[in-house]
This record gives sequence, C-alpha cells and structure tokens, in this order.
Amino acid sequence: MSGGTPTKRPVADALRQELRRGTLVLAVLAVLREEANGTAVRDALAGGGVEIEEGALYPMLRRLEEQALLTSEWRMEGSRNKRFYRLSSVGAETYAALIGEWRRQTAGLEALTGEQSR
Amino acid sequence: MSGGTPTKRPVADALRQELRRGTLVLAVLAVLREEANGTAVRDALAGGGVEIEEGALYPMLRRLEEQALLTSEWRMEGSRNKRFYRLSSVGAETYAALIGEWRRQTAGLEALTGEQSR
Repeated sequence: MSGGTPTKRPVADALRQELRRGTLVLAVLAVLREEANGTAVRDALAGGGVEIEEGALYPMLRRLEEQALLTSEWRMEGSRNKRFYRLSSVGAETYAALIGEWRRQTAGLEALTGEQSR
Repeated sequence: MSGGTPTKRPVADALRQELRRGTLVLAVLAVLREEANGTAVRDALAGGGVEIEEGALYPMLRRLEEQALLTSEWRMEGSRNKRFYRLSSVGAETYAALIGEWRRQTAGLEALTGEQSR
C-alpha cells in the first residue's frame, strides 16, 4: 500500500495515489479503534504493509480530529508528554460505514477483474 | 460500490466518495480489457455492483483516452454509429500496475481491520 517509487508514467502514478488516498483514512481509523499515539499508529500501519511518512500522518490525525472522527489527549508516557488518539463515537460510526463501502467495492472489483485479493 | 444516498454525515460521505473514486477507474479499465461502447461498459460495471451515471462515465472515458490509457473508434452497430473503447498498450500496463497496488492495499486493510472481504 506504499505510494512506491515514482515511475515514468505520471498518469499511472496519479491513479495509484488516488487509489491509495481513499484507503489510507480507513486504515488509520481501523488502527485507532484502540487508543494510540502517532508513533504507535505509524508502527501499526507499517505492520499491515501501509507506509506513511510522519509529515503526512500527523496532519491527517489533526484533520480527522477537526472532523470530529478522533478525540485526543496529552499524557505522560515515560518522561515524555505524548498525544494519544482514538475514534470518537462519530468516528466509530464512520468507520463502520466505510468498512461496508470498502467490502462492497472489493467484491465488485473482484468480480470485474477476476482477481482474488488473496 | 454505489456512491449511495447522502447521509447527514458530510465527512463520512466525502470519505466514502474518496474511497470510491480510486477504484472506479480500476473497474473501468478492467472492463475495457475487451472492447466495448459506453452502454456496454455501464452494463458491465452494474453487473459487478458498480453504479455510475452516464453523466460521469462519458467524461471519464474521454479523460482516460486523453491520458492515452484508452483508444477508441467509431463504428456502425445496427443502424447507429457508436464509439468503441478499449485499453491501449499503456492502459494495459497501467491496469496491471493498479491491480498490483489494489491487491497490496486489500491485503493490508484486511490485516488491519480484521475484515474478510468475502
């Protein structure tokens, strides 16, 4: 799910990014069903094969909080003050709706492409 | 994979559209591995559960042709002149790259969400 190395095909790259953009939010919301700080979110995403740069993740977390999908609080962990995020109740509803949409899309694309995702 | 009925959650609707946008091009390219006119593309998409309005499909087909992913030709079918589309060689390469990206995304999201797509 990484954006991958840019190729000599700008159109293909743009389409790949477009494909990625939609699922990235869903992946972040999936992780934040349990509370986590930014570093832990990034590690969890990487564990699922989803690479995201810190410079992209933190603005996304702030935007999702502004959109009321996440709540956050600052807490000490070890000797450092860290911001912990998790889904709000609206975020949990949104996540459920998006998962439904994603499941329908995946089934549709499997039918059209003849591809098995696994 | 339909955009669905707008809800009272504009953020969720926007995210759903974003999720949909990326896969729609992939679905259209999948169909046009075999030559088809616009109506046949629409029917094939609908058969895979992917709804798209004519007012969205025809501009997309023209855009994909401008981007050199599709070729087209006018031909008589019955008593009517119709425009038939199919993947160009660049389109076929792009389709292969996008399918790879989509398969990685699907595997990643299944891991993160604990969802099975089927």
